[in-house]
Amino acid sequence: MVCLKAVFNFCKLYIFILVLLSASSTFAQSPKEAADSVQLRQVFNLALTQSSTYENLRELCQGVGPRLSGSAGAQQAVLWAEQKLRDLGADSVWLQPVAVPHWVRGTAARGTTESARLHQTGKPDQDLAVCALGGSVGTPEGGIRAGVVEVYRLTDLAKLGREKIEGKIVLYNRPMEPVLINTFEAYSGCVDQRASGAAEAAEYGTVGVLVRSMNLRMDDLPHTGTMSYREGLDSIPAAAISTNAAAALSKALRDNPNLEVSLELSCRVYPDALSYNVIGQINGSRLPDEIILVGGHLDSWDLGEGAHDDGAGCVQAMAVLEAYRQAGLRPERTVRCVLFMNEENGQRGAEEYARLSGEKSEVHVAAIESDRGGFTPRGFTVDGVDGVRETALARLRDWMGMLAPYGIHFADLGSAGVDISHLKPQNAALFGFVPDSQRYFDYHHAANDRFDAVNKRELELGAATLTSLIYLIDQHGILVQAPGLDQR
Amino acid sequence: MVCLKAVFNFCKLYIFILVLLSASSTFAQSPKEAADSVQLRQVFNLALTQSSTYENLRELCQGVGPRLSGSAGAQQAVLWAEQKLRDLGADSVWLQPVAVPHWVRGTAARGTTESARLHQTGKPDQDLAVCALGGSVGTPEGGIRAGVVEVYRLTDLAKLGREKIEGKIVLYNRPMEPVLINTFEAYSGCVDQRASGAAEAAEYGTVGVLVRSMNLRMDDLPHTGTMSYREGLDSIPAAAISTNAAAALSKALRDNPNLEVSLELSCRVYPDALSYNVIGQINGSRLPDEIILVGGHLDSWDLGEGAHDDGAGCVQAMAVLEAYRQAGLRPERTVRCVLFMNEENGQRGAEEYARLSGEKSEVHVAAIESDRGGFTPRGFTVDGVDGVRETALARLRDWMGMLAPYGIHFADLGSAGVDISHLKPQNAALFGFVPDSQRYFDYHHAANDRFDAVNKRELELGAATLTSLIYLIDQHGILVQAPGLDQR
Repeated sequence: MVCLKAVFNFCKLYIFILVLLSASSTFAQSPKEAADSVQLRQVFNLALTQSSTYENLRELCQGVGPRLSGSAGAQQAVLWAEQKLRDLGADSVWLQPVAVPHWVRGTAARGTTESARLHQTGKPDQDLAVCALGGSVGTPEGGIRAGVVEVYRLTDLAKLGREKIEGKIVLYNRPMEPVLINTFEAYSGCVDQRASGAAEAAEYGTVGVLVRSMNLRMDDLPHTGTMSYREGLDSIPAAAISTNAAAALSKALRDNPNLEVSLELSCRVYPDALSYNVIGQINGSRLPDEIILVGGHLDSWDLGEGAHDDGAGCVQAMAVLEAYRQAGLRPERTVRCVLFMNEENGQRGAEEYARLSGEKSEVHVAAIESDRGGFTPRGFTVDGVDGVRETALARLRDWMGMLAPYGIHFADLGSAGVDISHLKPQNAALFGFVPDSQRYFDYHHAANDRFDAVNKRELELGAATLTSLIYLIDQHGILVQAPGLDQR
Repeated sequence: MVCLKAVFNFCKLYIFILVLLSASSTFAQSPKEAADSVQLRQVFNLALTQSSTYENLRELCQGVGPRLSGSAGAQQAVLWAEQKLRDLGADSVWLQPVAVPHWVRGTAARGTTESARLHQTGKPDQDLAVCALGGSVGTPEGGIRAGVVEVYRLTDLAKLGREKIEGKIVLYNRPMEPVLINTFEAYSGCVDQRASGAAEAAEYGTVGVLVRSMNLRMDDLPHTGTMSYREGLDSIPAAAISTNAAAALSKALRDNPNLEVSLELSCRVYPDALSYNVIGQINGSRLPDEIILVGGHLDSWDLGEGAHDDGAGCVQAMAVLEAYRQAGLRPERTVRCVLFMNEENGQRGAEEYARLSGEKSEVHVAAIESDRGGFTPRGFTVDGVDGVRETALARLRDWMGMLAPYGIHFADLGSAGVDISHLKPQNAALFGFVPDSQRYFDYHHAANDRFDAVNKRELELGAATLTSLIYLIDQHGILVQAPGLDQR
């Protein structure tokens, strides 16, 4: 007995020292915080040593490849994700049907190459690196050829007036603002050219638009992206032009205002196609009706492999389920991974998900979106209806000390992501994952958004960051008073 | 008069609004803090729009190329940096002669290729990706061939004992620890294998060592780095082996402990060569005898182009002088850019700089080193003698609010850099620039440390971060009481 008691006391001492060691990593932690810190350390350890996240991204990028809504690649991605969620240990996995736009770039439809050429008298013709913007109409067979007018803002069109623009191709050449540290702000400040440039220019009788790629670098890659026309107006062809080609064309225009550009695009719109959101979840043990959603979007543009946008977000969201399984944990609330279809050119998946969720009177306590690339994690933006977002931000800030050892330091109000924004009316607390933004627009919507552009550790750290936030929300709730719930 | 007075009042109002707008960017700033914040914003704006930093790195990497101490490339780098510092607007530029080690990899000396091959009976021979470690002796003509013993720690040698090791090649195969978020900690935990592995193994009569590359990725690139022998012991050839090849060799050893490896290295050591530290400075307007040093090291390894290590640090340090010129500012203290020679395999430049500085009784208020790659800035480590480092850290933390808008969030005690460490006895406050560390060891000392591995914005943000800290130190001092100075 004496011997056993000595062993017992030794064990107590050992456990006491372990707890002390764990707690010492952050200052003056409560016992619960100390236990949480130990759990977060396990989450990061698993992500950096045993997670399949990086290999999953390899499969999605190199096995499936590009997956624009309505394409065969998108359908393959749906089947891949459905199986992968089962393999990772989801309690249930299902597909949510949704009709999506089906736009196809010319090269795929007719085997011809998209092209633009610069024509100046007395000089050899010069190729310009372009690609159709998503949703653009094609040109007539043989293309169009016209003079070019360069503008920097949509409002420049009115200043020039119809007589100077009619029959021309408009070059929108406002660059992303390099002094904005958050490159997404620079994107927001420019993207009106891409989204509305063709619709605006069509009002002045133009025949086409070229839009400077949303790219902070000077290079030869055109960056596609969605655009739309206005009902009842002519639809004119719209293409992105690489930053180098935009600069070259601008320079040529200063020397020779009468130059011409020819443009041929053979893209076209097909009838809507059937596709799916892919959903997998671990059922909550104590509060299964309270859903914590984590997601990204499964569709991508057709150039490149959709590695950062948003293969990274998809495999990170899937990694949350794998982490729970590998850690041997069961969440109290339901943790649901949603891979949305059609974020890029319609958001039909997100709309359908929110509509069905409303029909079923589901309660989303929180939703977290990863759609800013697979770079080193920095923190989260927080959104939600009045009151919810402030409470959620205060909660997140309470937890930041536990996340600091992993380089997570940013927590502020801000847009959380377009797919989960549809859950705002459910009083969900919305969190947008914020990785480092400096390199994102080097790859965004371009042919170089490939698997090899993603760093394994950066991707894994992001996955662990998502899992950590979900773990903390599940353990502590968001503490928002909502109808029918005493405490979330 | 009435009219003039109205204009005057309008101007006062305008200035008042400008000050309000500037101050509103951070909460509850003092007027001096508000003015500092405006100045830091200008520093970042200039770095992101007008700085030559990225083009300077291109010149250093692609024009000069690799620049190992004693090589023609190092000499070319010295001349390039001397001219560049003049071009950037230094008040004075000078070279500081220093004798440096002169080690040459075999390929350069004799035109032969470094090589290693795995031999197993009944299987085809297999190439192993290796490179000589810096400072290694070559093998005899025709190379060596021996059995292999794999170990994970230096102390494993004693456990195995001489009889199991003698006549063999030792494979040191301890990987970098992936769960350490700061990859430099993982490096520190492994680098004893590279630095001392050959010296330790030689005590047991081994004929050579292969050291797993200090790389967190699995790939085919061997990563070189410095190593040294012990006086009076045999010098045995030492090579780095790629992580993939190390794993393959380890696996083959488990299947076949009697396999053999042949290794041929034709590197050799030449007599010391004459080289130089390159120094340029802007003289202080009010306290010219107080020096704020900013530096990196001009030498690099011979593989790759020394882009992250430490071309980035060099052009960032040079960028500080350019920023003062472009902003039209003159520092109160002397801002000195020092490009140290021979950090990689001797630190002779840093030793000579500190020795001469001591002879001249110079006073370094602070020294800042950038030698952790050209990645997104995170903050600074702080070092110095007792009392100095704590004061410097407190000072830095006072300023962190002004740096937060640029994503700078890290400030803690820690090693600041090997070149500036020699200034610690001068009571200098030492700051180590801390960029994001996740990708650094993908490139460190390997053939892929090339210009295209550096992102322009990340590099420029780092340069602006260095300039900002120097601006704040110059404006406010470090407030360390030191002999002969009332206040630094």
